[in-house]
Amino acid sequence: PQTDWTGIDPADLLVMDLAPDAKGRPRRVVIQLLPAPFSQGWVGNVRKLAAAKFWDGTSVYRVQDNYVTQWGDPDGDDKVKAKPLPKGLVEVPERDYSSAVDAIWPASKGYVVDKTHDLPASYFTEMETKALWPKMKDSYSETVTFWNGWPLAGDYDRNSPVHCYGMVGVGRDMPPNTGTGAELYTVIGHAPRHLDRNIALIGRIIEGMEHMSSLPRGHGPLGFYDAAQGDERVPIVSVRLAEEVTDLPRYEYLSTESVSFAKYADARANRRDPFFLRTAGGADVCNIPVPVRRAK
Amino acid sequence: PQTDWTGIDPADLLVMDLAPDAKGRPRRVVIQLLPAPFSQGWVGNVRKLAAAKFWDGTSVYRVQDNYVTQWGDPDGDDKVKAKPLPKGLVEVPERDYSSAVDAIWPASKGYVVDKTHDLPASYFTEMETKALWPKMKDSYSETVTFWNGWPLAGDYDRNSPVHCYGMVGVGRDMPPNTGTGAELYTVIGHAPRHLDRNIALIGRIIEGMEHMSSLPRGHGPLGFYDAAQGDERVPIVSVRLAEEVTDLPRYEYLSTESVSFAKYADARANRRDPFFLRTAGGADVCNIPVPVRRAK
Repeated sequence: PQTDWTGIDPADLLVMDLAPDAKGRPRRVVIQLLPAPFSQGWVGNVRKLAAAKFWDGTSVYRVQDNYVTQWGDPDGDDKVKAKPLPKGLVEVPERDYSSAVDAIWPASKGYVVDKTHDLPASYFTEMETKALWPKMKDSYSETVTFWNGWPLAGDYDRNSPVHCYGMVGVGRDMPPNTGTGAELYTVIGHAPRHLDRNIALIGRIIEGMEHMSSLPRGHGPLGFYDAAQGDERVPIVSVRLAEEVTDLPRYEYLSTESVSFAKYADARANRRDPFFLRTAGGADVCNIPVPVRRAK
Repeated sequence: PQTDWTGIDPADLLVMDLAPDAKGRPRRVVIQLLPAPFSQGWVGNVRKLAAAKFWDGTSVYRVQDNYVTQWGDPDGDDKVKAKPLPKGLVEVPERDYSSAVDAIWPASKGYVVDKTHDLPASYFTEMETKALWPKMKDSYSETVTFWNGWPLAGDYDRNSPVHCYGMVGVGRDMPPNTGTGAELYTVIGHAPRHLDRNIALIGRIIEGMEHMSSLPRGHGPLGFYDAAQGDERVPIVSVRLAEEVTDLPRYEYLSTESVSFAKYADARANRRDPFFLRTAGGADVCNIPVPVRRAK
């Protein structure tokens, strides 16, 4: 039912227009930014960078197969050649790679862990659909769950968003550097979950993912485009907050707190259509992508 | 050490040449076929299809983002228009989607399951590296392990290869059809593990994966190329068994029975280089890809 879909606030959208493809077709990528309490320092920087039109004229400069597509200033690491950053960016502490459970789930609901499912009891109380939830065993963290449309992983103290396909993160140098947000990447392969809580995530691509995932792979180290192969960088025409874009549709996601989502997740874990002979009875968190669509 | 690398028998390689890309660069894809006891009915069919040059002049006709790239005869489902199949293909039973544990691990070694790691005790006895093995919790099966260079999943009775990135499988119709091997696909996104034991795997791409993963996505249902978008199908020039290809390099994989592999798997689960702040202490089976390289 339509009531199980939640509208995405246009204030949380970022619109990146790449140069048209070889056939002249437009390439627009729409990114949904993470809500509080997650990554708000970097998300704030990203908003400032977009407002300053920092990314206009930069490029997609790294495409590593089964890993990430990365964009921003290709000379960002070069103190002489780097494009100047706008004023007012903040340096975000490493601790903000994750958020305290109390800040994620309101204290009034508590966080009584369901030992079978590693999910807060409040989650089930609201849904009354406990039996529908699939098992999501995880090699990377004690708990995995969904919250306000996002996959989360962590422990009984802190949680972070999850490096699933299409999530967008912040490139950085060696610790304690945490990155400004000027260099971003998206996951184009099997979920690199080892990056969870080691790099900041700031959102996910909700439309136009194919424009990032189908780019030619780079042949330099780590998939950086190699000038010796000809200039394969993809020009970024503009990156804008949605409020500056006139023709953007509305988007909505299937509420992860709804019965519909629980049924959807269950269907991902227990494929009942006649194509399947066997059902796994489980699914990993990145194989249950939260449905996002254009609103009618 | 070189002794921990195992040569791949050229008799197990299939070479697919796509039409050159828009810049005239060659696109060669090398596929390693699964060894016995896995999928041998379909692997035999694939050998016959290659020997009959069945795929020459067919195409890559489906690219679904975060899922699969599929190739063969685009009219394969159409009884009138379908390209005739060579004689001698066998119909493989569904049971062969997996293999009995006794046939995978020699009976002399037994299959005494290590309850901590869900791996055969013989595995550890040989390696004497038990402490190095990472935890691989799995939402899809009771056991996950590596065997002769391949990821396996299943239970204490039967195991199958795993739908990780780059694995190659057999397109099929509704059960009890199991597919001939004429229509093949490879995984280009997050591992679709729900396909394990529901579809036959016949091997994996060991070189040229980018030529499959970076293709434009199809805009018809399920990522099939849509004629209305112009003909985006990628012509297949030829598919040959390696014995018919003169200029093919030798390949080798890091033996999954070696101490080096155990250390590699451990390093994937416990990232110790200074870039990382936290280590997960585990990894999922598809995030530990078996290293394959050209032999010197």
